[in-house]
Amino acid sequence: MNITQKILSSHLVEGNMIPGEEIAVRIDQTLTQDATGTMAYLEFEAIGLPRVRTELSVSYVDHNTLQVGFENADDHRFLQSAAARFGVYFSRMGNGICHQVHLERFGKPGKTLLGSDSHTPTCGGLGMLAIGAGGLDVATAMAGYPFYVKMPGVVNIRLHGRPAPWVAAKDIILEVLRRLSVKGGLGKVMEYTGEGIAYLSVPERATITNMGAELGATTSVFPSDEVTRRFLAAQGREQDFVKLLPDPGAEYDEVVDIDLSALEPLIALPHMPDNVVKVSEVAGRRVNQVFIGSCTNSSYTDLMKVAAILKGKIVHPGVSLVIAPGSRQVLTALASNGALADLVGAGARILECACGPCVGVGQSPPSGGISLRTSNRNFEGRSGTADAEIYLVSCETAAASALAGVITDPRDLGEPVQVSMPERFPVDDRMIIPPPEPGADLPLVMGPNIKPLPVAAPLAEQIEGEVLLKVGDNITTDHIMPAGAKILALRSNIPAISMHVFSRVDPTFAERALVAGGIVVGGLNYGQGSSREHAALAPLFLGIKAVLAKSFARIHMQNLVNFGLLPLVFANEADYDDIRQGDRLVIEGLRENLAANTVRVRNTRSGKVYPVKHTLSGRQIDILMAGGLLKYVKQNV
Amino acid sequence: MNITQKILSSHLVEGNMIPGEEIAVRIDQTLTQDATGTMAYLEFEAIGLPRVRTELSVSYVDHNTLQVGFENADDHRFLQSAAARFGVYFSRMGNGICHQVHLERFGKPGKTLLGSDSHTPTCGGLGMLAIGAGGLDVATAMAGYPFYVKMPGVVNIRLHGRPAPWVAAKDIILEVLRRLSVKGGLGKVMEYTGEGIAYLSVPERATITNMGAELGATTSVFPSDEVTRRFLAAQGREQDFVKLLPDPGAEYDEVVDIDLSALEPLIALPHMPDNVVKVSEVAGRRVNQVFIGSCTNSSYTDLMKVAAILKGKIVHPGVSLVIAPGSRQVLTALASNGALADLVGAGARILECACGPCVGVGQSPPSGGISLRTSNRNFEGRSGTADAEIYLVSCETAAASALAGVITDPRDLGEPVQVSMPERFPVDDRMIIPPPEPGADLPLVMGPNIKPLPVAAPLAEQIEGEVLLKVGDNITTDHIMPAGAKILALRSNIPAISMHVFSRVDPTFAERALVAGGIVVGGLNYGQGSSREHAALAPLFLGIKAVLAKSFARIHMQNLVNFGLLPLVFANEADYDDIRQGDRLVIEGLRENLAANTVRVRNTRSGKVYPVKHTLSGRQIDILMAGGLLKYVKQNV
Repeated sequence: MNITQKILSSHLVEGNMIPGEEIAVRIDQTLTQDATGTMAYLEFEAIGLPRVRTELSVSYVDHNTLQVGFENADDHRFLQSAAARFGVYFSRMGNGICHQVHLERFGKPGKTLLGSDSHTPTCGGLGMLAIGAGGLDVATAMAGYPFYVKMPGVVNIRLHGRPAPWVAAKDIILEVLRRLSVKGGLGKVMEYTGEGIAYLSVPERATITNMGAELGATTSVFPSDEVTRRFLAAQGREQDFVKLLPDPGAEYDEVVDIDLSALEPLIALPHMPDNVVKVSEVAGRRVNQVFIGSCTNSSYTDLMKVAAILKGKIVHPGVSLVIAPGSRQVLTALASNGALADLVGAGARILECACGPCVGVGQSPPSGGISLRTSNRNFEGRSGTADAEIYLVSCETAAASALAGVITDPRDLGEPVQVSMPERFPVDDRMIIPPPEPGADLPLVMGPNIKPLPVAAPLAEQIEGEVLLKVGDNITTDHIMPAGAKILALRSNIPAISMHVFSRVDPTFAERALVAGGIVVGGLNYGQGSSREHAALAPLFLGIKAVLAKSFARIHMQNLVNFGLLPLVFANEADYDDIRQGDRLVIEGLRENLAANTVRVRNTRSGKVYPVKHTLSGRQIDILMAGGLLKYVKQNV
Repeated sequence: MNITQKILSSHLVEGNMIPGEEIAVRIDQTLTQDATGTMAYLEFEAIGLPRVRTELSVSYVDHNTLQVGFENADDHRFLQSAAARFGVYFSRMGNGICHQVHLERFGKPGKTLLGSDSHTPTCGGLGMLAIGAGGLDVATAMAGYPFYVKMPGVVNIRLHGRPAPWVAAKDIILEVLRRLSVKGGLGKVMEYTGEGIAYLSVPERATITNMGAELGATTSVFPSDEVTRRFLAAQGREQDFVKLLPDPGAEYDEVVDIDLSALEPLIALPHMPDNVVKVSEVAGRRVNQVFIGSCTNSSYTDLMKVAAILKGKIVHPGVSLVIAPGSRQVLTALASNGALADLVGAGARILECACGPCVGVGQSPPSGGISLRTSNRNFEGRSGTADAEIYLVSCETAAASALAGVITDPRDLGEPVQVSMPERFPVDDRMIIPPPEPGADLPLVMGPNIKPLPVAAPLAEQIEGEVLLKVGDNITTDHIMPAGAKILALRSNIPAISMHVFSRVDPTFAERALVAGGIVVGGLNYGQGSSREHAALAPLFLGIKAVLAKSFARIHMQNLVNFGLLPLVFANEADYDDIRQGDRLVIEGLRENLAANTVRVRNTRSGKVYPVKHTLSGRQIDILMAGGLLKYVKQNV
């Protein structure tokens, strides 16, 4: 068996491990972050259990840390109270980005992790099967229910040779994205092997599995080997180590070979992470901002490399260089060994240990500005500046470009910097509050911005509605439900945040939808990007009944099902072209047709009837019929 | 002569130094910050000079550093371009708070400084006459015009004895506020002498002069002595030292004696800085947030004390501790000597070197939360959370309370921490860009949020209008023109920001004002607080013609005049009670009556006629007649 099969088979609760068939997997650990966590704990409360039933659940605060208004701090207080009430560890504000901290302190090889954040696969860097999902999926996992997912195909990415100087882990995943595209991982797990992995530390492996999310992959995973053992030992957690390698001759559904020694520094151009070229091809373009950080590239070694490059130099006068260390552990290490003084000395603006600019929470670039970022997504508008251009690069390319003021191939810097992993990280878990012993009835503390969950009705036998919006391929959850500091503050308030649905695509959408609901039509890979269930919850609130697309991203499709919105796929992609915004669509006989997968959609304007298929399991149909996962789970308790 | 008289007389351009008479003073240095600076440089451009005529002008960026949206970064870019074009030093984003950096790198004993920020008196800590003013006053000073101000009375605050352990400079200024109130310094300079000053370092003196702004004082000043020389030497600027002491037997208009050895740790309760009691009187109240920073308390020694208190301990689970070092120099020092690691280790959230929470830019407390802050203003709503309660304290009290989770007298900590000033600060000015040589015609780079200045019409002979709003005493510029990250982003866009005038007092105000303009009626000390000229510019845009109050704060009254709004003072304060919101007021024969100070205001509802006086100089009347200072200056070039 390969690693993926080994972990899945040891956690299999239902189903057969045949690619495409639905399986149910036992979840050992969960994580939430604050932008998705408030809903997840409200949902857990609605399920009605007194305490989580996982081995470990952790609640992090890393998205909404600017606190522009009372909403964020109220959410933090709610999350802290929910963690204590439900038996969850609470990582306090300032302790760092969920994925970085989880990798450092909690991730275990061979275990399963479900997180309400699409970059949960970060912990795949140490041999964990770590999957991103919507908040409600995580809430049910906390309640002890298995996680249902289509058995993924397993792609073996074999890394050969040794990376050339100045070629980083980030360049490896950018190469994978260049080859496979943002749809290339749909329904798949990317499993990394080959002699090249020996040259990659756990945080470097985590950079690769983290950004596997941009492939649309279910998750990505590395073996747990001697490198993993050393990392866990340096975290004082050698006891958590288990060796986990693919069996000799393990089979894979696909194989991709990458020669690390042939790679060059790469860069993703605006506005998609797979829009990848060599840095040398675009070198010389002016840069207004450089951001180093995010769950992809904010580890100790990442920032030590940056410090070594910047030491004694000064950032170009035309560049604002912002650096957000990934965790309090990273920041403590840099503050102790002088590297932080080097960063500050070079003119870096040091931000709190949090997601920050990656998710548009602060540091929006100037109008029409070019920002080089070590983060994972460069979707249009995500930075908070509608006409900014975001490029994705390694820490090395980012630092070199910050000094030069133009996009710069780090190989121009000459001798590569040498950074080694510490023997022992400065371990200090005092900013992670363990849950109290069971028994105390602790209150949930809710501020006035925390509003009740909307609840779907059971699926009607017939859906009829206007096509309120027709969009193209690769629509992201940032298009559907934008983030940024202002909108993220409303994550606990569905009525308020709903008014921002599709606001960057069509500012009239929410008001039009509120009138009588309707249907959205999309292209390929609809709903890629983040795990935010708000991209389903808010359309539910607005009255959206169904989404008809050429294909869906995994997490978003599950979120639609979880909240009772019907996801349908064109049987003939050409029918997409026949539909116009404003058309009226009728879908009849849903109960029978869903079961038989013979659903048809009639366009009242053209009179045409489109055959559609769905990729729903019987269980997912039952969830839709019940009016969403929460009702379904409560019915099945 | 006292110190104030010495500096004023050496800079006197016009007038007699008789308290209450208008004098004109030559300005050696100016500073701006980004929230007031964009307007100041647009105004300087409107004056039409190619380059500033001061000895030194510095443009800082410290308010709008969150960059939630494109507006902030566009402003930063504009400011950098304006600095280069007009011959101004540009302190880059991340270099720190204007007052802290100016104290470190530019302030000179005996010189005059005019700054478009009300806390400009900070540099009074090293014997400089440093005055806050509106942006247009600073723009005219950059153009080489003198600054006009009523000759202040000089109050001698004599500090006797040595502060008891755990009693900080902050406690001294809180004691002054307790005794004199937020109106106690109107029309006055506070001059500190006495043997007690020998125990105060320059940053500690600067804490006191900084928060003299909360007295309403024109400025505050300390002698320049051996302590000053050592500070300048530690900054590598011993050549900037001049000794400046009051002459033996110098006379003062008032004398206040304070026995430092008798002081205890003090605290300002919500919602006014003069609402001061002993910390011990309110000890034990729960605390949700502690903020250490701001131009009042973010120096090297401030944060070293905090680090010494926190070292090895951990912040209380109920408290979010946020720390924003005052400057890159401070941060570099703390990052180099391990103190920053101590702060992070104790659970502090480290923010960028900037004003931040003090001005409501981030870190808004939770609903109904209690926040202890080392900053200078605790006005209602200023934190960004309408129902939060802000208490003002020393760094010592803040740190002690962060550990305990309740308001805590730092004397409970036992032996006081010892922190000494360094022999030499880590001086590095590479984040301050000097202006290029004159001659190059450099462009101003303007983003789409930067809108033209509104311009007033010459004062009409008759003003008639509705009383759109009647407010009470001590209305602050935070009431008139709120700050916070969302509204501050609009500082370059008067049409947009005007919609927020008085929004926390009466959300209907702006829309009502836009209909036909009108008049505002206020109580005592109207317009206290910040120097923001937006509190005049935005009402001008809305059509406000006059403000009728019991008395005015200095900077705001000058801002009203600068933008052609008529400030009038009740001759009989009882007439205030006769006016109702919605009344219609008529003011006739303005030209003649202003000159003779015989203005009368007729209330068309009650028929009553209120005699009013004004405290305008002939020059100020001419400015009003011309339609504001910009037109007046251009007429007089």
